[in-house]
Amino acid sequence: MDIKSIIRKKRLKQELTKEEIRYFVSKLVREEITEAQASAVLSYIYINGLTEDEILYLSVAMAESGDMIDLSDIAENIVDKHATGGIGDKATILLMPILASLDIPVAKVSSRGYGVSGGTIDKLESIPGFQTDLTVDEFKQNLKDVGVCIMNQGLNFAPAEGKIYKLRNEVACENSLPIIAASLMSLKVATGSNKIVFDITCGKGTYIKTHEEAKRLAKLLVRLGKSLGKEVACVITDMNQPVGYSVGHNLEMKETIMALRGIISPDLGDVVEALGSIMIALATDSKDLNANANMIKEVMKTGKAYEKFKEMVQAQGGDVEFVEDPELLDKSKYIMPVLATEAGTVEAIDADMVGSIARYLGAGRMQDSGKINRTAGITINKKIGDNVTVGETLAYIHTDEDSKINGTTQNLKEAFKITNKKLNMKSRVLEIIK
Amino acid sequence: MDIKSIIRKKRLKQELTKEEIRYFVSKLVREEITEAQASAVLSYIYINGLTEDEILYLSVAMAESGDMIDLSDIAENIVDKHATGGIGDKATILLMPILASLDIPVAKVSSRGYGVSGGTIDKLESIPGFQTDLTVDEFKQNLKDVGVCIMNQGLNFAPAEGKIYKLRNEVACENSLPIIAASLMSLKVATGSNKIVFDITCGKGTYIKTHEEAKRLAKLLVRLGKSLGKEVACVITDMNQPVGYSVGHNLEMKETIMALRGIISPDLGDVVEALGSIMIALATDSKDLNANANMIKEVMKTGKAYEKFKEMVQAQGGDVEFVEDPELLDKSKYIMPVLATEAGTVEAIDADMVGSIARYLGAGRMQDSGKINRTAGITINKKIGDNVTVGETLAYIHTDEDSKINGTTQNLKEAFKITNKKLNMKSRVLEIIK
Repeated sequence: MDIKSIIRKKRLKQELTKEEIRYFVSKLVREEITEAQASAVLSYIYINGLTEDEILYLSVAMAESGDMIDLSDIAENIVDKHATGGIGDKATILLMPILASLDIPVAKVSSRGYGVSGGTIDKLESIPGFQTDLTVDEFKQNLKDVGVCIMNQGLNFAPAEGKIYKLRNEVACENSLPIIAASLMSLKVATGSNKIVFDITCGKGTYIKTHEEAKRLAKLLVRLGKSLGKEVACVITDMNQPVGYSVGHNLEMKETIMALRGIISPDLGDVVEALGSIMIALATDSKDLNANANMIKEVMKTGKAYEKFKEMVQAQGGDVEFVEDPELLDKSKYIMPVLATEAGTVEAIDADMVGSIARYLGAGRMQDSGKINRTAGITINKKIGDNVTVGETLAYIHTDEDSKINGTTQNLKEAFKITNKKLNMKSRVLEIIK
Repeated sequence: MDIKSIIRKKRLKQELTKEEIRYFVSKLVREEITEAQASAVLSYIYINGLTEDEILYLSVAMAESGDMIDLSDIAENIVDKHATGGIGDKATILLMPILASLDIPVAKVSSRGYGVSGGTIDKLESIPGFQTDLTVDEFKQNLKDVGVCIMNQGLNFAPAEGKIYKLRNEVACENSLPIIAASLMSLKVATGSNKIVFDITCGKGTYIKTHEEAKRLAKLLVRLGKSLGKEVACVITDMNQPVGYSVGHNLEMKETIMALRGIISPDLGDVVEALGSIMIALATDSKDLNANANMIKEVMKTGKAYEKFKEMVQAQGGDVEFVEDPELLDKSKYIMPVLATEAGTVEAIDADMVGSIARYLGAGRMQDSGKINRTAGITINKKIGDNVTVGETLAYIHTDEDSKINGTTQNLKEAFKITNKKLNMKSRVLEIIK
């Protein structure tokens, strides 16, 4: 067996065996094949696809390329939620304390953000002291004590996935469904959850551009889950505008805390209820999604979720003072309004563009090893459906560099699509596949 | 313009513009794109091909990625011969003094060998003192003085071609005709020859496996040559057995010297005459190939070519004593016969296998930076058409490591295909395309 024959086989659209896929993955992790060779494999997969058996083998091989956790001693059902990525998405952080406050254990293994979107870990680290570099034992202990814990994926879980994720972006294979599916499942196999809800975002701000593609990925994930003995459900959400009011680390942390206190953007609320109600259905006997959504509203209204979040922050070493007063979080030197120059109703906000601008301002990593500026970012003042008059503020730019204000102001204004027609408001949640 | 959009475009089988191709090549040379990205471009080219315009742009862009020589001040016509690679091929070294002795200037820019086959430069360096790392001025001076000179392609000629050559092998694109054609032409554009004969080897020992493929490549090269203002002819030769009697550096050097003294393997003689007669036709008014072949036989018989070779060796710092007595060249510690265990006629000798064994013995680089063992290699005792009885020597293994003898003996025996049928002897030269 050698990598060149595997490359040739995939080029000829032949099915790879389990052994060939394991060979490819293990050689990649041990750097015994070059990135150029891995890129060739990915490129031919992009064109010729993978069979479902191949995707399964790839998922398992990537999972087995590193450490694996067994969480079955914590609880019978460990529910996990995973988003394929969006701009301003803070649903994961909200759902952790919400579910835990309903006595559903949430074990989250996450990663730092690559590229445009910050990762969940990065966002939580905005709270001074918050630790995510835990051992598996610490992770499990926290789970037992608080019912919720998040740890950094680090280098040990599915290292092959990390390598392929990086390469996928490098060689324009971000939107290869079989590779996305295998990557997602490999992380779930490695991190031991058996009930998974995927938030599949589609639209301009993500690498899955259409509802149709998202649907295909969702169905694939559900089938793969079955083959792997995991119950999978997918919520397809529309990335026709950034999620909630903010993009950027400290800004999103503050928005998250305010949401837990009841001040929540309706579109973010929709997503949290849709995802959360399915997570409850997967983890418990409570199968009525409407009833589950009401339970979620309840724990947010009563402050139970907020209290659980504080517990979680404290258990992971974070300074709770910043949760109690998020105004303590650092702010940018310049907070500049972007004013509307035409009147009408906001029809869409280009999340891709907002993400790029936020990244340019310092809120995303420009390179893998890049640093992030925690205070930089964008706050959205007018969301889809809001009326705008000339001179009103559409959004704010947060930056420490005044040289970046002029260019981004114009670009950010262009991200807003204003219409004079009457708008048919649609929920961000497009479809549930299970 | 960015590399990912170029990757996507080629994936969609769209034609790249001249500017996009220049962008790709220059970024590759400056290492501003990754090898993984270049590999994706090559992989999609492999599947989707290139138009002839794209191949032209690629040839010129690769040529312009480094130094270029203008030889028009030396002579109106500078004829060059280039082989696509074969096992045991020493025709280039023979043709240099042969043509020079006929007053046709031969300016050869060559490279060290990669992988299986040693390069022409490597072979010549078996003569102690022989220098090929020349400046362009030294190269031109030698050409004027002796009428023949070879220099190392080094890092300065078409560096993009070197990078692509390496990648092509790494990602199993060795046999991509558009890439091969662009690579070959780029070197010819950079090194200033305007009359070129390509020896396109096909069969097991080379990356072009069939006569049909070789023909397509040949026709493509002739058309590309026209577009670039160069006269191109191609000789398609069959690699159904290694060329001549030996594979390995010192062994081939010795064979070359013996050939210049008139002791030449018939198959090597055929190739030299075919290539040489076309080279003469391109460079002079002597268009009759049979007459030209006779001229070649003549300078070999009279020793004129041999004398010219000594002149060339001397001019490039080599010790002529080793030419006058090639037995002075170092030999391996072990020279072990491989005996026939069945009788019959040799029908074919797997050149690919012979090449791999020679490489394993140390005669080829296992990696780009690997060292070569000058004495290691194989001598062929029975060629196609020769009768064999049980116990006769088919070949000899030359090695310094006794641990390598047993395994290679069996493998080398298997490289010989013995038949009991009557053989239709064919020339190694299959076709001439111009």
